[in-house]
Amino acid sequence: MKLGLIGLGKMGFNIGAQMLEKNHEVVATDVNEEAVRDFEKEGGKGTGSYQELVNSLEKPRVIWMMVPAGEITDQVIEELSPLLDEGDILIDGGNSNYKKTLANHEKLSTKGIQFFDVGTSGGTSGARHGACFMVGGDKETFETIEPLFRDLAVEDGYLYTGKGGSGHFLKMVHNGIEYGMMAAIGEGFELLEKSPFDYDYEDVSKVWNHGSVIRGWLMELMQDAFHKDANLDEIRGIMNSSGEGKWTVETALDFETPAPVIALSLMMRYRSQENDTFTGKVVSALRHEFGGHATEKK
Amino acid sequence: MKLGLIGLGKMGFNIGAQMLEKNHEVVATDVNEEAVRDFEKEGGKGTGSYQELVNSLEKPRVIWMMVPAGEITDQVIEELSPLLDEGDILIDGGNSNYKKTLANHEKLSTKGIQFFDVGTSGGTSGARHGACFMVGGDKETFETIEPLFRDLAVEDGYLYTGKGGSGHFLKMVHNGIEYGMMAAIGEGFELLEKSPFDYDYEDVSKVWNHGSVIRGWLMELMQDAFHKDANLDEIRGIMNSSGEGKWTVETALDFETPAPVIALSLMMRYRSQENDTFTGKVVSALRHEFGGHATEKK
Repeated sequence: MKLGLIGLGKMGFNIGAQMLEKNHEVVATDVNEEAVRDFEKEGGKGTGSYQELVNSLEKPRVIWMMVPAGEITDQVIEELSPLLDEGDILIDGGNSNYKKTLANHEKLSTKGIQFFDVGTSGGTSGARHGACFMVGGDKETFETIEPLFRDLAVEDGYLYTGKGGSGHFLKMVHNGIEYGMMAAIGEGFELLEKSPFDYDYEDVSKVWNHGSVIRGWLMELMQDAFHKDANLDEIRGIMNSSGEGKWTVETALDFETPAPVIALSLMMRYRSQENDTFTGKVVSALRHEFGGHATEKK
Repeated sequence: MKLGLIGLGKMGFNIGAQMLEKNHEVVATDVNEEAVRDFEKEGGKGTGSYQELVNSLEKPRVIWMMVPAGEITDQVIEELSPLLDEGDILIDGGNSNYKKTLANHEKLSTKGIQFFDVGTSGGTSGARHGACFMVGGDKETFETIEPLFRDLAVEDGYLYTGKGGSGHFLKMVHNGIEYGMMAAIGEGFELLEKSPFDYDYEDVSKVWNHGSVIRGWLMELMQDAFHKDANLDEIRGIMNSSGEGKWTVETALDFETPAPVIALSLMMRYRSQENDTFTGKVVSALRHEFGGHATEKK
């Protein structure tokens, strides 16, 4: 298949390289010209403008966006969509908020553009060697692009999830689950670290990956991480986040549905980003006021 | 190896059958005589008393206990240990609380009995076809029984974890992690169920098992569960628990270490066991008292 690719960052470059490897013809662009040149070295065709990219594709065009969610995705759609014709297919492979995605579906459908929201999981190695895709959009049109997903996913690693928005919603929930799983794994190793025993964490993750109930890819990644740094001495315990966990919790609030474990996983990430907390000051001050308990001074 | 097996329940029977399959000679006993007869049909030797079991083994004897943790384990050790000689090896393959295990190590070491605490993971199918073992006890003596674990574990599925107690402690933390992971998975599917989209949960678990970040055995089990019952209509959402999650949280309290996600997973299990809550009555009553908000009457 000949297609366009917008975005050659960590995910986009790897997925583009996989497209080339699977014999797709890829015309790509990125704001970073060096990434475009690197992509040409991989055998892709680089281009400098959306107009040039659009001109080099045949109708119905297929264009895959792999750019950061939010403003940048909005901006790309804003600039690109006037150049597209009815029947063209635009894929958002990023982690867009599903509400924004619903709005994009509506906006683009008025122009007759077939929009697909694709949740992509599996990290950069997945993007390069076989990922997991959750695809929302028009079912009939999906058949046109299905061969692409068959090529880029691991075996059984793509799913048509239903109407527009369902792909990004599912990916969001996937990430919410990931937050909770990672928090539980973190807390477990914390208890091992505080225990009176002397565990080798690489050995522990390895044995847990062989026959235990909690075996899985995250535990395999722990094995790799402990192999590189036996006690994670080189890393600070600051847990950043990039949106999907927050959206999962916002969604739980929208639905007025309890998702306390995922919510607390997110809150603990926020806590990890603070050196000190005002909560802590307030509680210490109160303990001092009512009980004369000592506070720790700055 | 010739060894004794005490306990032919779900786990014990399966591990015994695996021992036989791997050409070990097993003399087994259980309070349930039918289980003993069934085990004889599998090719094992059944026996009615601990004395008979002990007499049929050569020194140093190796005896594997696979009985429920707590009182029953205590009782077996109480009755069995006077019959054992110095150098005999006693394995507790159950989910004993590691504090109790530490006490058992101390008690049995005064009699010269080599005690091993073995955390076993992988469920009944693991017990039958290859499990995951975490083994605490004397390092030198471990070499005597290591061939047994090599046979009964999946490849790379056993670990000598260090001094007595470290096996059961590690298994406890494993289960704590499992609680958090399962809660996160549950909450994720809850959000899918409440969403405006129409997901096939078997398909979702399947695609998540192929290339996604949250792939793993628990998600494979979800795929199986949704295959049998597409919307889990046949199951009530009551989450029981059998101790290890509670002990993990107790351990976090002992260490004064935060493990909030695991703790909340446990609390949500308790919540699921209540039809109504006194908490709910109290909060409703207060809302009514201060704001005149309606309460729901019985």
